[in-house]
This record gives sequence, C-alpha cells and structure tokens, in this order.
Amino acid sequence: MRNQLYLFNTLTRTKEKFTPIHPGRVGIYVCGPTVYSDVHLGNCRTFISFDLIYRYLLYLGFKVRYVRNITDAGHLEGDRDEGDDKFVKKAKLEQLEPMEIVQKYTLGFHDVMREFNTLSPSIEPTATGHISEQIEMIKEIISNGYAYEINGTVYFNVEKYNTEFPYGQLTNRKLEDLLEGTRELSGQDEKRGRLDFALWISAKPETLMKWNSPWGWGFPGWHIECSAMSSKYLGNTFDIHGGGMDLQATHHTNEIAQSQACNHTSPVNYWLHTNMLTVNGVRMSKSAGNGFLPGELFTGNHPLLDKGYSPMAVRFFMMQTHYRSTLDFSNEALRASEKGYRRIINGLVTLKTLVYQPESEVQDEKLNTEIERLCELCYAGMNDDFNSAIVIANLFNLLKYINSFSHKIIPLASLSETTFEKMKTTFIQFVEDILGLKEEKFYKPNLIDDLYDILLELYKGSKETKDYARVDFIRKRADAEGIIIKDTKEGVSWSYKE
Amino acid sequence: MRNQLYLFNTLTRTKEKFTPIHPGRVGIYVCGPTVYSDVHLGNCRTFISFDLIYRYLLYLGFKVRYVRNITDAGHLEGDRDEGDDKFVKKAKLEQLEPMEIVQKYTLGFHDVMREFNTLSPSIEPTATGHISEQIEMIKEIISNGYAYEINGTVYFNVEKYNTEFPYGQLTNRKLEDLLEGTRELSGQDEKRGRLDFALWISAKPETLMKWNSPWGWGFPGWHIECSAMSSKYLGNTFDIHGGGMDLQATHHTNEIAQSQACNHTSPVNYWLHTNMLTVNGVRMSKSAGNGFLPGELFTGNHPLLDKGYSPMAVRFFMMQTHYRSTLDFSNEALRASEKGYRRIINGLVTLKTLVYQPESEVQDEKLNTEIERLCELCYAGMNDDFNSAIVIANLFNLLKYINSFSHKIIPLASLSETTFEKMKTTFIQFVEDILGLKEEKFYKPNLIDDLYDILLELYKGSKETKDYARVDFIRKRADAEGIIIKDTKEGVSWSYKE
Repeated sequence: MRNQLYLFNTLTRTKEKFTPIHPGRVGIYVCGPTVYSDVHLGNCRTFISFDLIYRYLLYLGFKVRYVRNITDAGHLEGDRDEGDDKFVKKAKLEQLEPMEIVQKYTLGFHDVMREFNTLSPSIEPTATGHISEQIEMIKEIISNGYAYEINGTVYFNVEKYNTEFPYGQLTNRKLEDLLEGTRELSGQDEKRGRLDFALWISAKPETLMKWNSPWGWGFPGWHIECSAMSSKYLGNTFDIHGGGMDLQATHHTNEIAQSQACNHTSPVNYWLHTNMLTVNGVRMSKSAGNGFLPGELFTGNHPLLDKGYSPMAVRFFMMQTHYRSTLDFSNEALRASEKGYRRIINGLVTLKTLVYQPESEVQDEKLNTEIERLCELCYAGMNDDFNSAIVIANLFNLLKYINSFSHKIIPLASLSETTFEKMKTTFIQFVEDILGLKEEKFYKPNLIDDLYDILLELYKGSKETKDYARVDFIRKRADAEGIIIKDTKEGVSWSYKE
Repeated sequence: MRNQLYLFNTLTRTKEKFTPIHPGRVGIYVCGPTVYSDVHLGNCRTFISFDLIYRYLLYLGFKVRYVRNITDAGHLEGDRDEGDDKFVKKAKLEQLEPMEIVQKYTLGFHDVMREFNTLSPSIEPTATGHISEQIEMIKEIISNGYAYEINGTVYFNVEKYNTEFPYGQLTNRKLEDLLEGTRELSGQDEKRGRLDFALWISAKPETLMKWNSPWGWGFPGWHIECSAMSSKYLGNTFDIHGGGMDLQATHHTNEIAQSQACNHTSPVNYWLHTNMLTVNGVRMSKSAGNGFLPGELFTGNHPLLDKGYSPMAVRFFMMQTHYRSTLDFSNEALRASEKGYRRIINGLVTLKTLVYQPESEVQDEKLNTEIERLCELCYAGMNDDFNSAIVIANLFNLLKYINSFSHKIIPLASLSETTFEKMKTTFIQFVEDILGLKEEKFYKPNLIDDLYDILLELYKGSKETKDYARVDFIRKRADAEGIIIKDTKEGVSWSYKE
C-alpha cells in the first residue's frame, strides 16, 4: 500500500502510478546549478523538492542512484580589450581562470545545500568532466543523421528529427507552432533550421574553455551535457528526470531529442518539474529586483525582508507547498512557517520523551482509529505526487494529540501500544527522514558565548548574595563544559580550560 | 624584509630565496587525495602544511593560484565472477559506479579539511575532468619522440629521455642506480625499458572507467594527470609544486619527465615535500595497524588513543613541528598540544580585550625592544622555510607578556603604542590568519543542550529558595536565546520559543 506511489508526469500530463524499470531500484537525474554565480532561491527550491523526493524513495526502500549535475562549462570569454593577440600571449597565471570561479561557487552551493539539510546526490558529475562522453554522443548523433557540422560547429537538425519523433511532446506543442515563435534565419546564421541548436560550438580566439574534438577546438552546447551524463550513469532509459519548469520547453525538450537521436530510445519514463517562486505575488527575478539569495534570507539582510529566517524554517516553509504549485514568499508566511517549524520540533522533542506504560484503563478505540488514520494520511500525502503540504497538515493534527498526551489531558494508555508506536515512528520519520527537518538551535551567531555570559552573571549574583552552594555548582558545571570561571580584582571572567 | 622568504627546494637540496616567476603572483600545485577511501592522516598533514604555506603567501600579499587536484580516475574493475559477457550486459543501475565512490569520499575529504580549518584551494581539478587534456599531452609526448604505443597502451621511454635530461634528478640518483633496483623485463612485458611507465592504459573488458582515445578505449596512467592539470592552470613552468615525500621518487620524478618531454621546459622551480607521520615512534601505516583516521582522532575511538583531540588541537599539534620533520603522534604529545592550543586561544581572547591607554609612566625601552624582537622572530620563522615550530615558540614568549599585561603585573603603558599595536597585530595575525587556528568551543556534541540544562537547574533551585528576581532573570535571558522555560505539574522543562 505504501508503495502505491503516484507522480505527475509532465510527458503525459497525468498522474501515473510509479513503476521503476528495475524492481527495487530507481535512477533519477536532476539538472543542477550553473556555478558561475551564487545559487538562487528558485534553484534551491528545486533541489530541496528533489531532496524530499529522494528521501521518500529511500524511505520506501528503493536503492536510488540520484545524479545531479554541476554545469561548469559555459561560454566565458576573455577580456578582448587588449586585443586577441596580446590576450593569447598572456601568462597563464595572469589570465582569468574560469575554474577558479567554478570552485568558488561550487563550494558556496554545497554550503547552502548543507544549511538546508539536503542529502548529497549519489553522483555530482560536471560538464567539463564529461567532454569525451559528449563528443562520443555527438559523433553518434551525426552518424545517425540527426546533426550536421558547419565550420567546426555541430547543429542538431530539429526538423529532420521531428519527421520521426514528436519534438515538442514535453510541452505538448506542434513543430509548426514552435517555428512560429522563432525568428527567421538571417544570412549570418550558419544553421539550416530555425529551431536547430548547437551540440558543439567552435571556439573563438577569446574563448577560455575549449577542448579538441573531431570538429576542431570548441566546447559543448547547452544541452548535450545532461544527455551524456544521464545516460552514462543511469542508462539510455531511466526512471525519473527532474528540474525547474523553466527548463521544460528548451533544455529538456532538447535532451529528449538528443538522447533519442543517439540511443534510439526515449530517455526518461517520468519527467517531474518544480514550479516557480514569487515574492508578495510577483515572480521572483533579478529584473524585478525582488530576488534575494539564500544568505540574505537567513540573515534578513534585504530590503524586502523584515528579519532573517533560519534554514530549517525556510525548508519547512517550502515543504508547506506542493512542489508543483507556485510558492509565494512574504514576511507573514515566513514568520508563520518559523512558528510552525518550532511547534513541530517541540512536538518531536516531547514525543521522544513519552514512554508508553500500559495501564488498567480501557483503551479508546475511536482514538486509536483516528491516530492510525492520521498516520496513513501522511503516507497517502507523499504517495500522491510527494504532496508534503498534506503531510504537514496531518503532522499538525497528530501534534495536537501528542501535546494532549504530554499534558496528560488524554491518558497515553488510551492508545494501544501498537498505535502509540505507529504514531511515534510515523511522526519522527516524516519529520526527520522524509521532510528532512532537524532540531536547530536558535539561529544566532554567538549563542554559546551568550549562554556563558548568562552563567557568569548568575555566578556573580550568587557571589553577591553569598549563595556559595550555587557559586560552587556553577563553577563545577562550567568546568565540565570546558570553561573556567575566574575571580579577579576586576570582577569575574571566564576562559577555556587549559 | 618580510618578503625575504627562503624555502628548501628538493630539486637542489638547498634552502633558496623564493623568487616568483611573475612578480606579485605565485602558482602552486599540490598533489591531492585519491578519493577511493577515507583520507588518511598523513595526507591531512600534507594538506595542512600546504594550507600554512598558502596562508603565508597570501599574508605576504601575493596573488596565489593554488591548485590541488582530486584523483578520481583509477583502475577500478568490475566483478568478473559472473563472466565478462554477462557483466557487460548488466543494466547501468545495477553496476558498481565508481563515481558514487568518488562522490562519497570527495565530500568526506572536504568535511575533514573544513574541520581542520584549511582554506579551499583556488581550483580542485579532477583527473576524470581532464581526460582531453591528458590525451593532448600524450599525443605531444609521442610526437616529440619520448613515448611509444603498444597494443593500445602508451609508454614513456625513460632511457631515451635520460640521454637528454637527468631523469633521477629529484632524488639525486643516476639512471644506472635506478635500473639496478628494478626487476628485469619478462616475455610478458610489453614495455621496452624497465623504468618505462604507462601514460595511457588500454582498457580490459572489465574496466569500469574508460574513455576513447587515439589509441582506443582506455584510461590515463598514474602520473599524467598532474602534469596535464598543473600546466593547464599554472603554465608550463610554475613556481611551487608540493606533495608528500613518498611521491618524490616516482610520481614527481615522472611528472618532471612528462612535462619536459611535452613542453620542452622544466615544469617547476621549487619542489617542496612534507615528511611522514609516526605513532609512538613507528611509521604510521595500515600494515603496522597504527593508522587512525581523522575522525577516530577527533573522537578518540581507536585502541591507541586515550581520548579524542579536537581538530584545532590536532592542527596546533601539527604546526608545532616543521613540515620537513617527522611528526610523532602520542597521547602525551597530543595532550600537551591541546593544552598549548587552549593557552594560545585564551591569550588571543585576552589580547583582544586589552585597550592601550598611554599613562604618565615612563616607557620601558628594553621591554619594547624585546617585544619587537619576538614579533620579528615570528616572521623570521615563517621566512625560514615556513618553520611554524619557531613561530609557535615565539608566540608563547609573547603570551607570557600578554598575560602579564592582562594581570597588571607589568603595566601596559610600559609599551609604546606602536609596539603594543605591533604585538597585537602580530599575535592575532599569526594565530588566526597564518597558523589558521580559530577559537573552538569545547568539542562536545551536546554543549548547547548541556548549557540549557544548567540554566534549568539554576532556575529550579532559585524557585525552591524563592529567589524570584533570579527566577525572572533566567526566564528572560533564556527567552532572548530562543527558549521558553515552562513550569508544569511534573517540574520544570524547556522548549523552543514558537
């Protein structure tokens, strides 16, 4: 029953029962970040959504190979101000080195993902790490007749492909409609068809990242990396491919075409797409000036934010909306989520302290049924296209009972031991393992120092009132935590135990 | 004066004045970890040593490009038990995927490096990310006449190379001596010369990681990646190449040969090598059973360890020995370093609170001179081949004075303001920026919860003795730290503020 997972497949525009290709195993590929700048919050939402999906698949017992790539090959070009010739002659050490930029933003991306408590993917392949594989794939596409080379650049022939396969299937559009939305080719265009896209691009003198290929020095096009890496690590046809919905019309459409043209098979059984972010109802974007970075959200350092919100509060906030719905950021909604997150965590801590002791009282059968039902609704929520919003609503319903048990408003023994254990397991596993929420201390940089200071003030106060037992108590307990309280002429201070 | 940096060059076996190729810039390459298992402590020492070197070069104002590679291409082979044919037919998802192993240990390595507070290198290139570059380099070496192909494998011709360049220069050995230590070729050997080594290795059917090349499907040899990546990012000749001394005789010797044979120039001006680790006087190794992992060292979970030592205590311990000396691990030495580290950090905290206020008292000229001298000795230590041991000895000498100023045994006004500022800047910069030590809270997993518990006990006690002012104080201060103290029928407890 718990395995009756259904998911919404963009390819068919319907909710389908999930059946993996290899029983017990799932292959999933998600388009990762381009590491030429800080990861933006929309991307974070996508990766956190797929973290939820990954976690639930693991929870269901699947052996999951989760591949999320890093796009580190792009079109960075050197500064031409000084002229190509001079540029080319420059010493290596004085050149802009794209891989330094890649390193900086890859590490920054990993830091943000860690703050959000996402699990690492099984593999994080990079575009530059798969140049050979991309070249091999392009060779095959050419030899299968779906691509052509002009002056060292290789283009995919969309119209040729479309005579055999429905190019626009992922967005449910016909080629004619797609062509209508595209500008006509000019004399300067090398490519033959208006929708044709580059698989390999010939390097210009100022191109910094380039590799040798059968078509000369150049670099891969925007789409081929994902086709090459997904088939390398997951096979020519795999289970799930995910990404933001902005990738659907072009990047994912081209991925399907490339893979089909190379491997003679449709690459993906289930396409999943996450929805966009809005801020106070307006789509988040750089041009609208309403885009904040994860770090700004954590610190509150942005004009649109009243205060900072901790990573777990933000994760909880995201989980409160289904991944296929628009998610709207507002201070009110974030504050409510922060409160909600802390209520859930307090419930978690409380629940872990509850000990079941059967008493002579009669069990409340209706209550048992109700708790069991709420637990099942959590599973049902996840099985219905990973609807974490439904899960959270039902966790709050369970929470009411947990608090009633804790405050002894309802005796715990009203439950059967089985129901109690089910409630406990369900709540803990959904909060920690599936939603990926963890207990987070107050999000304050100097929390520990602040706590030391409180202890020190209590120490001082106790000395003044001559509560020597308390003075001793504080000194001893502080010592056990690695700090020494010192009485000096100037007053009281502390230092690390040496 | 501070720029008069001298370093011991393995190539010349002398201490040489450091002169970078491009004024104001330094290119440095360090052989990084192989990510097929947990990083071992000997490697950590190497990377922490080069972190010190990197930090000091940055401190001196150089623009440093620091490249440390990740070796992720190797010779992993599939399980042949089931026969090649069946193996090849297996679905992708059911195969061992080397890149899953790479991902796991790369992340683990980064975690350990973060614990040790090392700065990230500017670029962390991977072997699999530079297959094209390695192939290009091998092509060039062949075309220059220093390598030959046999059955899809390419060998470097050491004897040919040695007729023009001193192959054994890094270890100061002649080819004849090297040949003597090598077994004779048998009929099964493909290679021509006993010392010849593979640049490219033809793939067997069970080889999991393989790429297409001019010599067929295969994978790069052990040494070519570092030559290809260092020249790509730092140029054909760069300033500093580092690594553990175990790499000197083969890996680095071959790197020099490859780069010279390809680029017609010696690749590196200064070769730096870190020394080995011993445990209680015995060389640390798997076979001796005396090797512990960083994690085991932090937790103390190893038969040879009395207790755990925090990452900063271990870093301090390593810094107390010059990188070219053997470093011996023992519980006594680690305990002493833990104490020393905490003394230094307490000094740091104290120093930051000292405020210079000129008084009418006469300055102590001898004292000023002595403090200035101790500061200069810190620089002199680093300038003498990055001798952090000398730096630490002088920081301890400065610490005595800092503590005397703090305890008013010596009046701070005995110093001139210039000397005071110099002492302050030197101590702080050497501890934090150069040695890379940071204030570390007591290394205890539940420190914050423990501190909450102490507060709660004080709250309870104050209630019992009816110290209501104190009860209010604790409640309010706890509230400001995000926790709510609750009085219930069962006693007192706390939860997160919602």
